Amino acid sequence: MITDLDALMHSQNLDAILITGPAHHNPAMAYFTGRANLTHADLIKKAGEAPVLFFSPMERDEAGRTGLATRSLADYRMQDLLKETGNDQLKATVLRYRKMLADLEITSGRLGVFGRIDAGSAFAIFSGLMQQLPELEVVGQLGDSILMQAMATKDAHEVERIRQMGEITTSVVEKVADLLASQKSSNNILVMTDGTPWTVGEIKKRINLWLAEAGAEDPEGVIFSIGRDAGVPHSTGNPGDVLELGKSIVFDIFPCEGGGGYFYDFTRTWCLGFAPDDIQTVYEDVLSVYRQIVSELKVNTLCRQYQERTCELFESRGHPTIKSNPMTMEGYVHGLGHGIGLHVHELPRFGLLSTNLDVLSPGVVVTIEPGLYYPDRGFGVRVEDTLWVRPDGEIEILADYPYDLVIPVA
Amino acid sequence: MITDLDALMHSQNLDAILITGPAHHNPAMAYFTGRANLTHADLIKKAGEAPVLFFSPMERDEAGRTGLATRSLADYRMQDLLKETGNDQLKATVLRYRKMLADLEITSGRLGVFGRIDAGSAFAIFSGLMQQLPELEVVGQLGDSILMQAMATKDAHEVERIRQMGEITTSVVEKVADLLASQKSSNNILVMTDGTPWTVGEIKKRINLWLAEAGAEDPEGVIFSIGRDAGVPHSTGNPGDVLELGKSIVFDIFPCEGGGGYFYDFTRTWCLGFAPDDIQTVYEDVLSVYRQIVSELKVNTLCRQYQERTCELFESRGHPTIKSNPMTMEGYVHGLGHGIGLHVHELPRFGLLSTNLDVLSPGVVVTIEPGLYYPDRGFGVRVEDTLWVRPDGEIEILADYPYDLVIPVA
Repeated sequence: MITDLDALMHSQNLDAILITGPAHHNPAMAYFTGRANLTHADLIKKAGEAPVLFFSPMERDEAGRTGLATRSLADYRMQDLLKETGNDQLKATVLRYRKMLADLEITSGRLGVFGRIDAGSAFAIFSGLMQQLPELEVVGQLGDSILMQAMATKDAHEVERIRQMGEITTSVVEKVADLLASQKSSNNILVMTDGTPWTVGEIKKRINLWLAEAGAEDPEGVIFSIGRDAGVPHSTGNPGDVLELGKSIVFDIFPCEGGGGYFYDFTRTWCLGFAPDDIQTVYEDVLSVYRQIVSELKVNTLCRQYQERTCELFESRGHPTIKSNPMTMEGYVHGLGHGIGLHVHELPRFGLLSTNLDVLSPGVVVTIEPGLYYPDRGFGVRVEDTLWVRPDGEIEILADYPYDLVIPVA
Repeated sequence: MITDLDALMHSQNLDAILITGPAHHNPAMAYFTGRANLTHADLIKKAGEAPVLFFSPMERDEAGRTGLATRSLADYRMQDLLKETGNDQLKATVLRYRKMLADLEITSGRLGVFGRIDAGSAFAIFSGLMQQLPELEVVGQLGDSILMQAMATKDAHEVERIRQMGEITTSVVEKVADLLASQKSSNNILVMTDGTPWTVGEIKKRINLWLAEAGAEDPEGVIFSIGRDAGVPHSTGNPGDVLELGKSIVFDIFPCEGGGGYFYDFTRTWCLGFAPDDIQTVYEDVLSVYRQIVSELKVNTLCRQYQERTCELFESRGHPTIKSNPMTMEGYVHGLGHGIGLHVHELPRFGLLSTNLDVLSPGVVVTIEPGLYYPDRGFGVRVEDTLWVRPDGEIEILADYPYDLVIPVA
C-alpha cells in the first residue's frame, strides 16, 4: 500500500522519489493523484515526508483536487530557464528539476525516478541532473521497483475502484452473452437478421462501445477468439472469423477506468448452441481445477505453490503441463494468475521458479485463470476471476458471474 | 518524412537509433510499425540502413505485417540472460540490448534512443549500456528531436490517415450538432424529453461513444465548454454545466485513431438558439481573421509571420493580443496553430519568438485556430481546421464543415 512507501524507500536507501508525466495512463503518477486529470506534472516525495505535486498553472484546479501539497510550475518558468541556458531545452529542463529539488532541499542522496516520458528524454534529463549535482545519485528500478512493491497490496479505496471495474466488466460480458443468445444461426453460423454472419470483429466493436458507454476502456485490447485461435493463449481473435456453433470461444476482457486507472481481468469460455463432448470434458476439468484452487487459497502462503498445485491437478486428469514439460504447447501452458491494479500485470507472481517468493499477503488483488489449450484439436478453454485477499484473510471474488459453458442459440 | 531520417541522423552525427516500447500510444514506434498491434518491441535503425524490428515470439504475425525486416526476441531469452547475470533484471536487460546491438554490429558511435518505457527504467538501462560499452554514446533528444523533425512533413499515406480522422471528427461534430438541434429548451436551458437538463458531461459521454463507434479515441480529452469557461482557452468544460441558450460553446475535438495513431484537431463555436450581439460581433471577427489568414498561407514561408499577422488583424479590430501585451488574459491569448500527426502537437510551431524559424514546408499538416477570449464578459470564441500544405504548394483543409455560429433550438 501507499502507506508502505516510506519503509520501502528506506529498504532501498532512497532519500526521495520523483515521478513525472501525465496523470492519465501513467500508473506511477496516478497512484498519487487519483482521478485528477493532469496533462503534465511532477511529483517529489522525500523519505518520511508527504509528496509535493508540481502542477502546470493551467491545471491548478485539477491539482487542488488531488488533496496533495502543491507547487506551481509557474515558479519555474521555462522561458526564464531557456534564457539562463542559452536557449538549450535540455539544460533548461535539467535546471528546472535542480531548482525544484533544491526548493525541497534535495541536493544529494539517492533519488528514485519513475513515470511516463520519452525514453530518450528521461535518459538525457536524469544524466544531466547527475552531472549538475555530483552528490545526487539517480536510481532507475526495473521490475520489482518500490512502487510495484507498494502497489502489490491495495487499500479499501483501491479495492472499491477495482470492484466497480468488475461490475462494469461483468455487465459488458452479460451484454455480449445476451446479444449472442438473441441471434439466429444459419448453417451452424451465427447470423444477423439480414443473414450477414456475425464476426469476431463485430463483437469486439460492441464490446468497445459498451465499455466506452460505461466510462471504461481496454488499452491492452480484448481477447475474443474462437476454435483453433482459442487454443492459442495469446491470440486475441481474428476480426474476420465467423461464430460457428459448437466451437469454444475464449472471451478474456481486461479493461480499466477511462483515462487509465484500475483494471479488472475476467475470462469465460463459451460454446454457442451446444458443446461437443471433448470441449465439455476439458471445460469441466478447468472449472473444477479453478474451483479447487480458489478453495485452497490461503492468506500469507507462497503463490508459486498454487501454480505447482494447478499443474498436479491437471496432470492427474491426464493433461500435459509446463511443469512436466516447460516447452509444451498443449494442455496447461501458462501461469495461474497475476496481481492486478493500476497495471494489468502487477505483483504478486505465480511463477514456478524457486526464486519466486511472492506471497498472498492481505490486500493483494490477483487473477486466478487456469486454462487448457489444444490448438490441434481446435479448441482452448480458460476461466478467470479477479480475487481480493481481504485484510481478515478471507478470499473474495470481486465480481460474480455464472460459469455456463453453453449459450443457447435459436 | 521518414525518408528524411538518414539525412537528419547524419546532421546530428547519429550512427543508429533505437526505439522501444509498445506500438500503441507510442508515436516513435508507430511511426515505423504503422497499425501493427505490438505490446512490446524494439526497433534499431543504423544510418543508411533499413530498420530492424525485434519482436516478441508471440507477436510474430503482427511483426510480419509491418513489412519491416524482423528478428525474434526469442533469440535473446531473458531466462538465459538472467542466469548469465545472477538473476539481475537490469543487468540482463542491458545485456540483451548489448547483444541485439552487437548482432547489428553496433558497439560504438552515437545511438539516439526514443520510445515509451518507464522513465526510471530508461535511465537505468541506457546508463548501464554506456557503462558496458564505453565507446557507445547514448543520446536522448528533447524537443526538436530528429524524429519530430522527420515527422513534421507527411507523406501521402500519412495524410490519408489524417484525412480519414478528419472525416470521423467532423461526422461526430455533426452528430453533436444534430443532437443539440433536436432538443427542446425550457427556461432558456436545453432539456431532454423528460425535462432533465442536458449537461456538458452528458454531451461528452456521447462524443466518446460516437468516437469509439468510429474506431477512434480521444486520449487527450475533448473541450466542450460554455459561457465563462469558453473564455478560458484551456478549460475543458465543467461536466455539471447546463447548456444555456445564447451562451458561447467552444467545442474543440482532437481525437486519434484507436490505439493511438494519427490525430485530427478541429474547433467550432456555437450558440444554442440565438447569438447575443457581442458574441456575434466577436465571432465575425474571429471567422474573418481565420479566413484571411488561411487565404494568406503560402508554402515555404515562416510560420511566425502568420502569428504576427493574426495579432495585427485582431488589434486593428480593437482586440488586445499577446503581441501588444504578452500577459493579457483577454482577446487573442494563444498561438495560431501547430503541426499535427502522431502527436497532437508537432512541428512546425507558430510562436512569435524570433528564434522560431519553422517554415510551412510542403508536406506539413497544421492547425489554424485563431480565437478571442473574454472570460469576464462570459464568453470565448475559437474556430479551427486542420490543413495540409500539399507537395504542389496548395493549401487544403482536410475536412470541410460549416461555420454557422447559431444552432437553432425548438
